Amino acid sequence: MIRGACLVGQSGGPTAVINASLEGIVEEALKNTYITKVLGSINGVEGILAHQIIDFSNEDTAELSLLKYTPSSILGSVRYKLSEPSLTNEVYQKILQTFEILNIRYFFYIGGNDSMDTVKKLNDFFILANYECKVLGVPKTIDNDLAFTDHTPGYGSSIKYIATAISQIKKDIACYKKGKVTVVEIMGRDAGWLTAGAKLAEVCGCGPDLIYLPEIPFNIDNFVQDVERIYTKNQHVLICVSEGIKNNKNQYILQYREFNNNDDFGHIQLGGVGQVLVEIINQRLSLPVRSIELNLPQRCFATNASKTDIIEAYESGRFALLSAIKGNSGKMVIFKRTNNPYHISFDLIDLELVANKVKTVPLSWINEQHNNLTDCFINYALPLIKGESEIPYVSGLPRFAKLKLEKIKIDEKNQPN
Amino acid sequence: MIRGACLVGQSGGPTAVINASLEGIVEEALKNTYITKVLGSINGVEGILAHQIIDFSNEDTAELSLLKYTPSSILGSVRYKLSEPSLTNEVYQKILQTFEILNIRYFFYIGGNDSMDTVKKLNDFFILANYECKVLGVPKTIDNDLAFTDHTPGYGSSIKYIATAISQIKKDIACYKKGKVTVVEIMGRDAGWLTAGAKLAEVCGCGPDLIYLPEIPFNIDNFVQDVERIYTKNQHVLICVSEGIKNNKNQYILQYREFNNNDDFGHIQLGGVGQVLVEIINQRLSLPVRSIELNLPQRCFATNASKTDIIEAYESGRFALLSAIKGNSGKMVIFKRTNNPYHISFDLIDLELVANKVKTVPLSWINEQHNNLTDCFINYALPLIKGESEIPYVSGLPRFAKLKLEKIKIDEKNQPN
Repeated sequence: MIRGACLVGQSGGPTAVINASLEGIVEEALKNTYITKVLGSINGVEGILAHQIIDFSNEDTAELSLLKYTPSSILGSVRYKLSEPSLTNEVYQKILQTFEILNIRYFFYIGGNDSMDTVKKLNDFFILANYECKVLGVPKTIDNDLAFTDHTPGYGSSIKYIATAISQIKKDIACYKKGKVTVVEIMGRDAGWLTAGAKLAEVCGCGPDLIYLPEIPFNIDNFVQDVERIYTKNQHVLICVSEGIKNNKNQYILQYREFNNNDDFGHIQLGGVGQVLVEIINQRLSLPVRSIELNLPQRCFATNASKTDIIEAYESGRFALLSAIKGNSGKMVIFKRTNNPYHISFDLIDLELVANKVKTVPLSWINEQHNNLTDCFINYALPLIKGESEIPYVSGLPRFAKLKLEKIKIDEKNQPN
Repeated sequence: MIRGACLVGQSGGPTAVINASLEGIVEEALKNTYITKVLGSINGVEGILAHQIIDFSNEDTAELSLLKYTPSSILGSVRYKLSEPSLTNEVYQKILQTFEILNIRYFFYIGGNDSMDTVKKLNDFFILANYECKVLGVPKTIDNDLAFTDHTPGYGSSIKYIATAISQIKKDIACYKKGKVTVVEIMGRDAGWLTAGAKLAEVCGCGPDLIYLPEIPFNIDNFVQDVERIYTKNQHVLICVSEGIKNNKNQYILQYREFNNNDDFGHIQLGGVGQVLVEIINQRLSLPVRSIELNLPQRCFATNASKTDIIEAYESGRFALLSAIKGNSGKMVIFKRTNNPYHISFDLIDLELVANKVKTVPLSWINEQHNNLTDCFINYALPLIKGESEIPYVSGLPRFAKLKLEKIKIDEKNQPN
């Protein structure tokens, strides 16, 4: 096995546990005899190009151990699309130069769908350039839309927040006798995994009344009937809706405005799909109604993270490091599940299989009325939210990892070749 | 001391710990020899009028002990304004009749500003009617705007959620190099207490850049300059703004639209003040900007409640029960603080002093630039968020109290008089 430095980068939208995967890689790397240096790239690929590289051996180990409780990407993230690998391309040349100077022989990229495209291109390029470097992708995305893996790290914590929030919103709205319709807009453009997470609130007796996912075309007439029926019965309706629901012409409902023919309304920045549904309920049913968005806390509320998610994210990082040492490259870590009892083991899959594919919620998990999910989803998702984060608190506030993140000096003149 | 039943009601907006106050009253009452029955009124005063009364001795004590972790008002809430007390008024007659039938001699109302008006009127009425009943108010409001009390139960948990959310949103937005302005809209129409709570995120190193409260007239030009200055320096700006900020003519900024002269825009239900600030930043500075609202989780996120708040809410309920037994009536429980170490003791104050008064954030706690708070606020608020809720979890979800809430039968024919 080749000895050399390893480099880790983070990419795409942040999650509650992307730093847990980082910690898993870094802690395993720091004690591995094949790894000469453990480096991190600031803002993913951009840090390689801009020579913004840090050395984890400069960091306090106690602080590193808090990474698993620290939300967002501590190295900084990026959305950067590499062109096709080519020996003459300047960007790739710059990357190769940096890798050579620092003798980086192991590269780990923690990210979602788009990031796996980057990992694949870098792996292909190093083969083309005949530079020995093991390149592996470590999955993360709250969207849970990566193919070939049972689920993705970050998803469990997001739906734990969503289900916890929904259960408490359900308590909140129930306190007044005077009824109201509440529309909760949840993240997820093309897949309904996050919105489906609201279903879990049912387990503690506080589930939403209606759930609409982008997997099924949204029918406004059926929706209005659903709302009216439940309002008549309960005087309260709690609706969870994915921001990405579309009609049967594949148009976002977000863009739909039934009752506004004002030509220049587009000039005003309107709310999301929740606000559209508010207008529809207002106009067609004349019911008191409001919409709320769960927004950023869905993806960054590490204080409410799932312990299972934290552990799995950490272990998937360790697995990536050990797999690379064994010689694997051009692959992504995937999660394989066995049930009864729930257990996750890790495996690797070729990147060309996963990159740019989207996994959606199985249609068989959506009920016949298309306004809720079946228990199949609960069976799938409940193990993912098990256990609570053990994040330490100081003075009543979370104590996050504090890293120095000092950039190392990279001497371009002293490069080996 | 008179022996008889006690009745508890909840009123106004829900909080994370209003049920902790209820639990304090109920558990103390259940073991008190002067109390013959411990009753609860569904939806506050409305439950008295509609004979929707429950008996806490029918409830499981283990479930009652979970009330302190259960958000919202478990008895249901109400916004009901009583007319002036009068012996001939039908509503008051109905109340008196119910109290007589059930021999209710102690009445506790847990609520905010408006609810204390109800408590005062009921107390005045019972004196007028020569019916012996001890009536006490137990404060609750996330708004912290009740006069004569150091703070109100519910406030500590709300600002703990707000500061926790802000600290994690700060982490989230910092992950991209490409900058953005983020406006977070926080509850509070007339007092900035909740928005001020965002300041506490500074304690864990993740404070907002700018904070605007309704206590100081909002100056748009200064705001634009503040945003531009910080964006130039950091490429990220995190702004916390109270929904109730007003200009120097005392008009809500919420209603202000600088760049839209469209006559019928009022027809569209627009977002709140955050959205107005987004438009201003968009137009005047052309910066990427978004607004988010913390919304209902601010008041109902009991899973993130302050342990200090839970204990104080519980103890204020107990104190109310014991004070009524001692003969006190027509008063509200207040919190008195000693510092170093922080300690809260309880006292009572005449309701006529507190009802319908609003306490705002001291102007001396707002910085000279009117865009942040001083450390005085941190010193005041930090003890209120100390400690985490010990809410039990089952299958990764919070386990709330489950009460039967069976209505008791009230026989109008068998009334004593």
